[in-house]
Amino acid sequence: MPAGCLMNITARILALVTLLVCLPALAGSPRGSPTKDKDTPPFAQILSESKGWEWRKPDPENLLVMRLPSGRVVMELDPAYAPLHVANIKTLVREHYFDGLAIVRVQDDFVAQWDDPEAEDGGDRHKIRSLGSAKASLPPEFTQPIGGTRPWVRLPDGDFYAPEVGFSEDFPAARDPGANETWLVHCYGTLAVARDNPPDSGNGSALYAAIGQAPRRLDRNLTVVGRIVEGMDNLSALPRGRGPLGFYVHPKDRTLILDIRVAADLPPAQRPDMEILRTDSPTFQRLLEATRNRHDAFYVTPPGKVDICAVPAPVRDSP
Amino acid sequence: MPAGCLMNITARILALVTLLVCLPALAGSPRGSPTKDKDTPPFAQILSESKGWEWRKPDPENLLVMRLPSGRVVMELDPAYAPLHVANIKTLVREHYFDGLAIVRVQDDFVAQWDDPEAEDGGDRHKIRSLGSAKASLPPEFTQPIGGTRPWVRLPDGDFYAPEVGFSEDFPAARDPGANETWLVHCYGTLAVARDNPPDSGNGSALYAAIGQAPRRLDRNLTVVGRIVEGMDNLSALPRGRGPLGFYVHPKDRTLILDIRVAADLPPAQRPDMEILRTDSPTFQRLLEATRNRHDAFYVTPPGKVDICAVPAPVRDSP
Repeated sequence: MPAGCLMNITARILALVTLLVCLPALAGSPRGSPTKDKDTPPFAQILSESKGWEWRKPDPENLLVMRLPSGRVVMELDPAYAPLHVANIKTLVREHYFDGLAIVRVQDDFVAQWDDPEAEDGGDRHKIRSLGSAKASLPPEFTQPIGGTRPWVRLPDGDFYAPEVGFSEDFPAARDPGANETWLVHCYGTLAVARDNPPDSGNGSALYAAIGQAPRRLDRNLTVVGRIVEGMDNLSALPRGRGPLGFYVHPKDRTLILDIRVAADLPPAQRPDMEILRTDSPTFQRLLEATRNRHDAFYVTPPGKVDICAVPAPVRDSP
Repeated sequence: MPAGCLMNITARILALVTLLVCLPALAGSPRGSPTKDKDTPPFAQILSESKGWEWRKPDPENLLVMRLPSGRVVMELDPAYAPLHVANIKTLVREHYFDGLAIVRVQDDFVAQWDDPEAEDGGDRHKIRSLGSAKASLPPEFTQPIGGTRPWVRLPDGDFYAPEVGFSEDFPAARDPGANETWLVHCYGTLAVARDNPPDSGNGSALYAAIGQAPRRLDRNLTVVGRIVEGMDNLSALPRGRGPLGFYVHPKDRTLILDIRVAADLPPAQRPDMEILRTDSPTFQRLLEATRNRHDAFYVTPPGKVDICAVPAPVRDSP
């Protein structure tokens, strides 16, 4: 579907997700051929045919807006999967804990991580920022019991790592019915809580986003708190750190965090005004099917399956 | 295995691959705990215990060195899987086709692509560079018949997309014994040939590297010719293009390719002097097992499985 990917779309889909969801032709010259009658519709066309009720506005209480010199990163938190950590992170944000801290680590094909630089080895321990009224230690929230009323949109294709995968609202997740456990999985753009060795050593003052191939081996070993819904490339395109584990060697290489705010606390004009496609909507199911069984002038062998990290729920500016 | 990941290693492993293969602790402060007796050894320790015969020197006839303003990118070509395309690419390189061209497209979580900028829409068709004695069209090499004498190192964990996966030398690959087909798969760092809609429209004058989650849906739809073995972050950390499919809107945003050379054609002092860990070596198998069943102070729930894209074959400077 080379050329016309973004052409017929009526809503202005945010750049991040539009690019992610377009199944691109890797053409040297992306001119493309005329669409044939039996072709799988391009993603942009499927999205342009969506109905207003298929989109939901995220709760501004669950959106964090991080301002970096290069632009903003918007994170959606999921209190259903990590209530204690989400509450603690919001306390930290509301007490301006993160303002003036930095992206301290960018490890290629793995994670971008932000933290108090003084908390790293070699920092001045006397300068470590106080956590204020936030807790220093929390019980891990690696999994939750299955249950509750939030819809579960199962992905019938299966998974390599988990007995069952699907979407809980727009978050990619997994389930083990035998163990009565469910957890958010590590896909590109997943937001989670860094920690030290003890499982209860995370508190949300150090966070990371996955910037490479889905690091699924981390599932159930770290507390996932949400995902990046705007501005992902402000993290993924940062220079990689040259130290062990991708930490920056020189403080000057770090990226300053201007501030992080809960969207609900921002003046209305500054709040992200976005909508997220419901994963239980017919349109999202059409997107999955268009990835799974693609028939057009470009694809020769459709994969026949779609994996849990292949189609992030699209995000758009509110019409 | 937080802190000491790179400490005991005797060979200087190239930064790219060391970081990729280290199973990192996501610690706010990567201090780590003392190693316990029954711990899975860290990757660096496993590598430091490798023997010289477990490493092989890649053939300089199959290495391409691309110089960008930010540094070099080294690609290893695999003529066993794409003989016609590899030969055509080497013809293009030897006639200096790529010198002065550009990275024209960087699509977040997908690919970085280089090409003749004039071949894009809006370019001056009269300025399109001649392919010289290279062929303009080649039969697709999406798959090859299973067979030949090169060792196949099967990954027993299985796969989500293919009946069988494993390594052919250091290249991640798949097999369908029923169809007698084998192909190189799209992992992070995979190098492949961009094309237009007709399957035979690729010729190697436009190439891409995967820079996000493994785009396995492309397997068997594009001709994979190799992988990036050094300098991956000179591609993955480039600014993302803002146009459709991640193409740059303004020519000034493109990254200039100074030149590309076959390593064998470079003066010996300029050739990459690297070694690649054999995937049929005990050390590589130890790395897989350390990913699959990890037991240390950090991991609570080892994944129990390792996927074909999770552990790229390590690369190091020759000792």
